[in-house]
Amino acid sequence: MKNYIKHDPWSIIEEGFEPEYNKISESIFSIGNGMFGQRANFEEQYSGETLKGNYVAGVYYPDKTRVGWWKNGYPEYFAKVLNASNWIGINISFDGEALDLATCKVEEFRRELNMKEGWLKRSFKATLPSGKQVAVSSVRICSMARTKVGALSYSVTPLNFSGEAQITPYVDFDVMNADSNYDEKFWNEQAKSATEDFSYVLASTKKTDFWVATGMKFKISGGWSAGETAVVVKDKYVEVNASGQVSEGKTLTIEKFASNISSMYFPKDQLVSVCQKEVDEAAKAGFDTLLQEHKEAWASKWEKSDIIIDGDVSSQQGIRFNIFQLNQTYTGEDERLNIGPKGFTGEKYGGSTYWDTEAYCLAFYLATSDQEVARNLVLYRYKHLQKAIENAQKLGFTDGAALYPMVTMNGEECHNEWEITFEEIHRNGAIAYAIYDYINYHGDENYLVDFGLEVLIGISRFWSQRVHWSKNKGQYVMHGVTGPNEYENNVNNNWYTSKMALWTLNYTLEGLAKHKGSNKLNTLLQKLSFKDSEAEKWQHILDNMYLGYDEKRGVFLQQDGFLDKELMPVGDIPAGQRPINQNWSWDRILRSCFIKQADTLQGIYLFEDEFDIETIERNFDFYEPMTVHESSLSPCVHAILASKLGRKEKAYEMYIRTARLDLDDYNNDTEDGCHTTSMAGTWMAFAKGFAGMRVRNGELYFSPYLPDHWDGYSFKIKFRERNLTIKATKGHVTIFNESADDLGIYLFDKKYQLAGNGSIDAPMN
Amino acid sequence: MKNYIKHDPWSIIEEGFEPEYNKISESIFSIGNGMFGQRANFEEQYSGETLKGNYVAGVYYPDKTRVGWWKNGYPEYFAKVLNASNWIGINISFDGEALDLATCKVEEFRRELNMKEGWLKRSFKATLPSGKQVAVSSVRICSMARTKVGALSYSVTPLNFSGEAQITPYVDFDVMNADSNYDEKFWNEQAKSATEDFSYVLASTKKTDFWVATGMKFKISGGWSAGETAVVVKDKYVEVNASGQVSEGKTLTIEKFASNISSMYFPKDQLVSVCQKEVDEAAKAGFDTLLQEHKEAWASKWEKSDIIIDGDVSSQQGIRFNIFQLNQTYTGEDERLNIGPKGFTGEKYGGSTYWDTEAYCLAFYLATSDQEVARNLVLYRYKHLQKAIENAQKLGFTDGAALYPMVTMNGEECHNEWEITFEEIHRNGAIAYAIYDYINYHGDENYLVDFGLEVLIGISRFWSQRVHWSKNKGQYVMHGVTGPNEYENNVNNNWYTSKMALWTLNYTLEGLAKHKGSNKLNTLLQKLSFKDSEAEKWQHILDNMYLGYDEKRGVFLQQDGFLDKELMPVGDIPAGQRPINQNWSWDRILRSCFIKQADTLQGIYLFEDEFDIETIERNFDFYEPMTVHESSLSPCVHAILASKLGRKEKAYEMYIRTARLDLDDYNNDTEDGCHTTSMAGTWMAFAKGFAGMRVRNGELYFSPYLPDHWDGYSFKIKFRERNLTIKATKGHVTIFNESADDLGIYLFDKKYQLAGNGSIDAPMN
Repeated sequence: MKNYIKHDPWSIIEEGFEPEYNKISESIFSIGNGMFGQRANFEEQYSGETLKGNYVAGVYYPDKTRVGWWKNGYPEYFAKVLNASNWIGINISFDGEALDLATCKVEEFRRELNMKEGWLKRSFKATLPSGKQVAVSSVRICSMARTKVGALSYSVTPLNFSGEAQITPYVDFDVMNADSNYDEKFWNEQAKSATEDFSYVLASTKKTDFWVATGMKFKISGGWSAGETAVVVKDKYVEVNASGQVSEGKTLTIEKFASNISSMYFPKDQLVSVCQKEVDEAAKAGFDTLLQEHKEAWASKWEKSDIIIDGDVSSQQGIRFNIFQLNQTYTGEDERLNIGPKGFTGEKYGGSTYWDTEAYCLAFYLATSDQEVARNLVLYRYKHLQKAIENAQKLGFTDGAALYPMVTMNGEECHNEWEITFEEIHRNGAIAYAIYDYINYHGDENYLVDFGLEVLIGISRFWSQRVHWSKNKGQYVMHGVTGPNEYENNVNNNWYTSKMALWTLNYTLEGLAKHKGSNKLNTLLQKLSFKDSEAEKWQHILDNMYLGYDEKRGVFLQQDGFLDKELMPVGDIPAGQRPINQNWSWDRILRSCFIKQADTLQGIYLFEDEFDIETIERNFDFYEPMTVHESSLSPCVHAILASKLGRKEKAYEMYIRTARLDLDDYNNDTEDGCHTTSMAGTWMAFAKGFAGMRVRNGELYFSPYLPDHWDGYSFKIKFRERNLTIKATKGHVTIFNESADDLGIYLFDKKYQLAGNGSIDAPMN
Repeated sequence: MKNYIKHDPWSIIEEGFEPEYNKISESIFSIGNGMFGQRANFEEQYSGETLKGNYVAGVYYPDKTRVGWWKNGYPEYFAKVLNASNWIGINISFDGEALDLATCKVEEFRRELNMKEGWLKRSFKATLPSGKQVAVSSVRICSMARTKVGALSYSVTPLNFSGEAQITPYVDFDVMNADSNYDEKFWNEQAKSATEDFSYVLASTKKTDFWVATGMKFKISGGWSAGETAVVVKDKYVEVNASGQVSEGKTLTIEKFASNISSMYFPKDQLVSVCQKEVDEAAKAGFDTLLQEHKEAWASKWEKSDIIIDGDVSSQQGIRFNIFQLNQTYTGEDERLNIGPKGFTGEKYGGSTYWDTEAYCLAFYLATSDQEVARNLVLYRYKHLQKAIENAQKLGFTDGAALYPMVTMNGEECHNEWEITFEEIHRNGAIAYAIYDYINYHGDENYLVDFGLEVLIGISRFWSQRVHWSKNKGQYVMHGVTGPNEYENNVNNNWYTSKMALWTLNYTLEGLAKHKGSNKLNTLLQKLSFKDSEAEKWQHILDNMYLGYDEKRGVFLQQDGFLDKELMPVGDIPAGQRPINQNWSWDRILRSCFIKQADTLQGIYLFEDEFDIETIERNFDFYEPMTVHESSLSPCVHAILASKLGRKEKAYEMYIRTARLDLDDYNNDTEDGCHTTSMAGTWMAFAKGFAGMRVRNGELYFSPYLPDHWDGYSFKIKFRERNLTIKATKGHVTIFNESADDLGIYLFDKKYQLAGNGSIDAPMN
């Protein structure tokens, strides 16, 4: 855990240059605009520790896997998000001496990520080895208004000298992934050109043949007497080398305008011309105009999604950082895109889609974005259905059974650990549940028969083949699964997975009943060669499935062997041995009772209305004390359940852990990138936890309370075309309807009719 | 399954050239002498499909592992036997045209491995693309009499032409392993020289720094008019290029003498001189003398270990092939060496030591070799005890607990699949049991206190930490194990593993009791900081361990969840889907009831005297029908149990499957190398199965019977300094004592006193 980020309600601020934290800061200060994004690398040369990262949405590479012992059914490759061209680079030197913070004395170093306006600023004073002193200030954006454009303004002031300077903006596509399995580079050069007016590199990925053009243009103004300009091209690299005279005390400013254009959106032969057009227009507008447009776009984002917390700046900064990262990672305009575990902040986990999207991210986008955004997230899986069917076929399933991948870029499975790939199948349930979640929130009933049921039938077919009849038990069982708690593998009858399977079968049957006889459904059932006997089998499973339950303790059983373990609370782990995944052998972890993240409790959270409060409490009190929360996805679910149980301190503890996970580098791994998908969990912990927000049968419920550490909070959501603001203080809760239409709404389980442009008010619980 | 090897009692014979079988034949026709060995590659150039393989005993390389997802506790590397220098190579060309069977028309091709005399012969007639015809005949040995020396005699006869020939014997150390994980080569050149008199390459392994000198010398005689000779050296390669005139119908013969000398046995600076001396002496002796010495050495091997089967040449050939391979793989002279799964016949499985040695190989060497050989096999693990303790420490075990590795070259674990590395811990039991096995057979009671107990205490300490007290069951349980049936992973309470653990604890306690108060034991216990409370804990585990048992079926439970599986016989697997490990996903295999190799039955086999015959029968009839025998180690154990149960047909079926596994390429994988360790299982199937041989409390028992397919059999064993021959016919069994001293012996459970140089006789059952 670290504590070097200054607390501020709207900005992330680092003061003082600490090279050993540089990679952490590169993650935290990342910026993006949904179409591309980047780690907070320096513009000028830096020979110290850095992880270079520029990413273009949707562009991936199927790297050859590393597998010690191959198993039948493994995928051939692991797709990973690609480190793409460095477009921010500007090498600077004075009288031949490079500006490189690793070799300078650095003073007054300051980095600020202004979340309200979406810009990254850096300033410092550097003394070069020769004694030359310069002051530098740079501001950078990935434009939210023009999503093809990035721009920066970089100012340098010689403090104690005059002389010759070389200013060398470049585009470098000769980059590689730090996690390349066989140290290979993944880009091929297709074309390049360097001129004073426009320079670009056009490169394509090996195998997947994505093409990306990155172009740039720059202007130097202020204290600068221009001399010669030269261009240099190298493999996948172009630069323009501008020489000139600088004068003591005179500030020169470089404005650099760049654009990334990928073949996801334009024909390959137009990439360069589109890129040049974007760069030209950006340069014509100038940096200040771009910045202004960008601020306005961010203002509109915040209008929909801001959360204000009074009386606790650390919580305030934390929640806004989470919302900011989510908004700059995924904007929902393209249903081919999704949300990688690190967003645009790092390479780890391949930038691929996990069940995180459905189980954690969806709730945020449902409530804070236009309906289209969540719809595109759900459609993403619809588009991958055929691949999911093929994936299941590889494992021996038949007749249209669909198993969605654990990790994917294009619908194909990428993961190859048998205990995950073949066994962590609860993901299939999360994908089914997301369909319900989307329809329940937005009331888009047609989605079910238009798209949802096709996916649900595929998944139900999978579940019905994945369980088997145990003669011994006289019930259906599900063997060989790994629950969300990946600290147990290959267990039998994981309660959560079985529960998700049953839920899917039931929801699918309900959907079939609801649309029975409709032309659309008939067409679909014909297309899928659906047989009535399938529905009968599903009902038989629903009626005869084994779900583990311990009568004595009154708790659901995480898996068949759980009670035979040596049960003990997390507090009994000897000091210095946490996190256990960094200190214990895998053998020891697997055999222990310790739980990585909500597992049985994940099911309790999803299906809370099925259980009385005592049941929820018994399960929480049994499982939570054994939970080590070593997944970033764990604390949020516990915060929600603790809130429901009135455990205010526990809820706050869990909330802080998720909200400031990266800002405080809680798990000592932020240097790899931020935990982007778990940031949506933070939002859930707030909205579903503190505000008690639920959508039941298409209706909105709130049961807010105030953590003791706060004076009040307010947040915004959009629900069925109404923009609502929920404001809680120590005494009251008020819900404002900022739209013209009224809305039925439940507050503390009492139903109100909230008038258009009106509000309701109630005393806080 | 293939059927191209001719049936013959003493030889393995292939007739006709079938390039698609070449890699299989290269495995089957392998030769070796315990110190080095090789696949049956051709001497002359061959551009067709081939897997080159030359191996020097004990020389290994720690290759970087390939792991997709690292787990704490994994070893850093995977040690593998190294492909070493090619010393057989002789390139041949006529008027510049190379002899290469891949480009020739090949007739009268014949390969013979004479097992009685230990030589490999190959002959053929080849028509080169130019139309030139030659007849070739070669004989090769890895000398059993001079274990540093290999030699060959290669004769060529031009059939339809005279002209210039180039004869180019070489030593090539520029080789690589086909299974190199990152396509790296593992040898560095240290020195080399090529002269007409002696040529050599001295190379060393990267990282492990083994040095090996390979040298050669040759003579050409017969139809040859010598011309110029040139030498060529390249990286790790030397050749001597002899030109001369050959004449139609005149046979020329090349004798090539080579030696491999490794730094396992000589100082690095003496390797070349020792090598040269060996080569010189071999050349001086000449090929015929070397061959004669070699035949005599093999005669002495067969004297101790032959098995004669009357009336079934296929069985006869099979059993001799197994004995032959075992004898040429391990000669027991060096306790640093062991028996790789493929011997000197291939690279697969890294050539490392597995539990195969203790569980399958030891029985053969106990009965057919001098005591020293088996003792060295057992000492091998004693020498690795410290590494086994370190291995256990890495996993979190303490206080001298020892976990022997699953796969090793030097005592360090090499395997990295968690379900094997951390869980397939029954290997530890096999290593403990081998100590008992050795002492029981040879009566070397001192071994226990001198070496055995130290290992047993380490292993017992491991077991006592590996089990845990289940409050729920009120018993000790063992979670997270993989039994010998690797088609189930990470199960709880695998009966076999728990049984082995209990046996170890009990045997250790017995050993402590037997030597109680002795100085040796006191010294040992002090060295190990042994506490009485440890013994008390072990006794508590012995008294309170859970072992799964199904009352209804009267069978021991393979693991906790087994009965909940969908149980069905192997016969229900649809046609064309076997072996399931080549046709089913790992997911499907794991959840099925199908058993890879004896698991519960492995325990029944080891501890048969604990169970009445009905119990053995019930377990056999429950588990055997679900066993797919997809490990080469499976059929032998079933053959033994089937024999005990009087199931003659089943026993014979299982026997044939193990005896001819490689000759008939039963599992379609012999091209990777022979299943050397399972060959010892064949011997067990014969001796413990058909002959009913047991050693109980240091006394020898036989209960022979004759499979219906045979007219009779006889075999030899050495027991307590007596050489015995057991001869069975349809009517009688006779046991001859070829030593001077008498011996008490049980035949059909009746005790006889077998006089020195006498015999006993009984009617067959």
